[in-house]
Amino acid sequence: MVILNTSSSLVDILRQRRQRLAQLIDFPAILWSGSSNPRNFAANVYPFRANSHFLYFAGLPLPNAAIRLEAGKLELFMDDPQPSSALWHGEMPKREEIAQMIGANAAKPIAELEFLVADAATIAVQDAATWTKQSQLLNRWILPQNPPQGIDLELAKAVVSLRLTHDEGALAELRKAAVVSVEAHKAGMAATPKAKREAEVRGAMEGVIIAHNMTTSYNSIVTVHGEVLHNEQYHHPLQPGDLILADVGAETEMGWAADITRTWPVSGKFSSTQRDIYDVVLAAHDACIAKISPGVEYGDIHLLAATVIAEGLVDLGILQGNAQDLVELDAHALFFPHGIGHLLGLDVHDMEDLGDLAGYEEGRKRSDRFGLGYLRLNRPLRPGMLVTIEPGFYQVPAILNDAKQSSKYHNVVNWERLSQFVDVRGIRIEDDVLVTTDGSEVLTAALPNKADAVEELIG
Amino acid sequence: MVILNTSSSLVDILRQRRQRLAQLIDFPAILWSGSSNPRNFAANVYPFRANSHFLYFAGLPLPNAAIRLEAGKLELFMDDPQPSSALWHGEMPKREEIAQMIGANAAKPIAELEFLVADAATIAVQDAATWTKQSQLLNRWILPQNPPQGIDLELAKAVVSLRLTHDEGALAELRKAAVVSVEAHKAGMAATPKAKREAEVRGAMEGVIIAHNMTTSYNSIVTVHGEVLHNEQYHHPLQPGDLILADVGAETEMGWAADITRTWPVSGKFSSTQRDIYDVVLAAHDACIAKISPGVEYGDIHLLAATVIAEGLVDLGILQGNAQDLVELDAHALFFPHGIGHLLGLDVHDMEDLGDLAGYEEGRKRSDRFGLGYLRLNRPLRPGMLVTIEPGFYQVPAILNDAKQSSKYHNVVNWERLSQFVDVRGIRIEDDVLVTTDGSEVLTAALPNKADAVEELIG
Repeated sequence: MVILNTSSSLVDILRQRRQRLAQLIDFPAILWSGSSNPRNFAANVYPFRANSHFLYFAGLPLPNAAIRLEAGKLELFMDDPQPSSALWHGEMPKREEIAQMIGANAAKPIAELEFLVADAATIAVQDAATWTKQSQLLNRWILPQNPPQGIDLELAKAVVSLRLTHDEGALAELRKAAVVSVEAHKAGMAATPKAKREAEVRGAMEGVIIAHNMTTSYNSIVTVHGEVLHNEQYHHPLQPGDLILADVGAETEMGWAADITRTWPVSGKFSSTQRDIYDVVLAAHDACIAKISPGVEYGDIHLLAATVIAEGLVDLGILQGNAQDLVELDAHALFFPHGIGHLLGLDVHDMEDLGDLAGYEEGRKRSDRFGLGYLRLNRPLRPGMLVTIEPGFYQVPAILNDAKQSSKYHNVVNWERLSQFVDVRGIRIEDDVLVTTDGSEVLTAALPNKADAVEELIG
Repeated sequence: MVILNTSSSLVDILRQRRQRLAQLIDFPAILWSGSSNPRNFAANVYPFRANSHFLYFAGLPLPNAAIRLEAGKLELFMDDPQPSSALWHGEMPKREEIAQMIGANAAKPIAELEFLVADAATIAVQDAATWTKQSQLLNRWILPQNPPQGIDLELAKAVVSLRLTHDEGALAELRKAAVVSVEAHKAGMAATPKAKREAEVRGAMEGVIIAHNMTTSYNSIVTVHGEVLHNEQYHHPLQPGDLILADVGAETEMGWAADITRTWPVSGKFSSTQRDIYDVVLAAHDACIAKISPGVEYGDIHLLAATVIAEGLVDLGILQGNAQDLVELDAHALFFPHGIGHLLGLDVHDMEDLGDLAGYEEGRKRSDRFGLGYLRLNRPLRPGMLVTIEPGFYQVPAILNDAKQSSKYHNVVNWERLSQFVDVRGIRIEDDVLVTTDGSEVLTAALPNKADAVEELIG
């Protein structure tokens, strides 16, 4: 584990979280942290990442640990390291010390957990070694791919209702992640003129994140092929006319995430067509953020983005017709085929391990509309929620060359005009926006997003 | 997957490997590549790392694939991506194209594998989703923690005998990994004067590796507490009197590893005590490399390191007595408690997933001697073997403060003299050495290791 600088405030934050949980459920909950995943052999593991629900209540990324929460009390279960491990891993804080750091009411060896499982709910951890243990101890299948049921579902809903809005402890961490992510993007822009391949820009960005003793909160996208939405290839050469789309976010040592996308020109100057589309995407981005406020439906924010993009594309002569009508036809989704954003917290898609339990208000389901099916968040906004706003424009061959789509939208797209924008393969602008009581605060605002300002950061 | 620049030479290399395998076994072998491990939710995965045995014969890091090898023929089993995946992941090469890249004799959907499992041997992959599939298809438990048995053991031995010595295709990759690792270490040294924490030096080093579109072949050690052998903490501040021990290696896109350690002074200048010990470790390092030659027992290289270190510590007045006698007493292991090195290839501890099958000549077992138990390689050297040479000196509190040890070694250590070396907590110097027909070649020789030369690289 990492020895972190903890303070009495961590104890207070964690106590408040478990007291709030106790107001929502009247049965015990056991949360496991998980164990390391072997990479190519048992001793060569991927960096340990504790389960997010565990982190929320336990505060520290302890491997092979569990906590039992009941009536506002926290019991910590973990084993002290073997004496021989001091040779390889150094002196680690003992269970009792960790218990103090997190304000646990008791601390016991992990073996004692089996006597305290009666009537306890849990949430599945991702690694097989741990969900096997969970299933054995609780005597029922606890699988990450199975939707929770019974008391596990009640626990999941209670945890969702807490984690949906962020307390001060969470926000302090989220702000740290945002600051470092901003610095990483600036480093990527600065490294661009000398870079020959995507990988070099990525190296500059992730180097900054590692230098702050953080990790990436998801596999970075750093690509000249922004039209591939989840592109995890970094070998393409950078050509002067290319745009780089970089979707890179840091995660703090305690596990809290940021998620930023910027798109910038390799040459340092947007072409006029690139700038035209960039400004459309930015207009959608700005309009959405201006509209964020408690009570507003996030689905409406998505539709607003769709409408502003449709308007912009009509103005540029790419789409034909009335923006409102085009959005009803899902014509915007030809170029903006994903949702406007998602929840952000301990996970980059916060609580996505619980399916749509966090993202969708109870009773709502994913739409099967082409333009809405990928929407990951469909709830009225509340103060303390952190969401991403990430409109984009992409020329995805799999969409635009699809015969069904192109015949359906044959009349609304000016294909000849569109062909003039061939140097715009993918643009996305993404910031992290906190809903506040009187509107919103952009946690990532320190990173410029206006075209001129972005150009100035390059090289 | 990564689309790699392949060439007809890859086809030739792979064909030779499977023909050599066919000379060793007369039953079919099926090797799986493995699948991605989820991190905090299903869609947020750790970077995919294909199984090393699969990589050796298939050449490309294909996820969710398998190959069947029989009589020198290779059949590839994988599914083409769903059409919808092009939106998210872009156009991927099709099964048939990949089959061509690797010179497969046939290419089929993964579902057809189940009709071709009769009498086939395999090797367990690390991730649970895959070893579950392996166990189901072959109708026996294939667990990564279980030693292979029957035909699986025969296959494992055959693969070990191939992978123990590297062909030209492997060496080309291993040299690439070495070059980038050397550059990473130079970047770490250059970043030291401005760095305030270990993490900043690590960021500079891993940034270089990422910029070359490579990954680290193991979790980096970058620490001022080199006495913690597997230290994976990076939060310590750098103080002017500290030594930084950096054990960092790159892995190519095809999966081949490097493994380098250097130790350098934060201030840019070794203290006289630090330099004295550094020179002892370097003398051991140089003596071992000078001795490497076909036919030499690697265990003797380890004992040579122990002897040179013991001699050096006697000369410095830290140990008392005759070096040979001290090594027989394991007194050197008070300060050098690990093995002199290990095999290096597709894995940083090559083939450690098979336990000691690769590291130990048949019939040999780990010693229970304090000074020999951690030796990972105990075989006569052969041309084409790549090994690390990594002597070190550490003041490990868990060893030196151990009452049993310190009473046993009370008379051979001059504790008062030792106390003058308090600013030497841990030093290790590690290079990657290829056994050649007429001696050896240091693949990492481009990174200086003499104290003066290291000082010059700082800042």
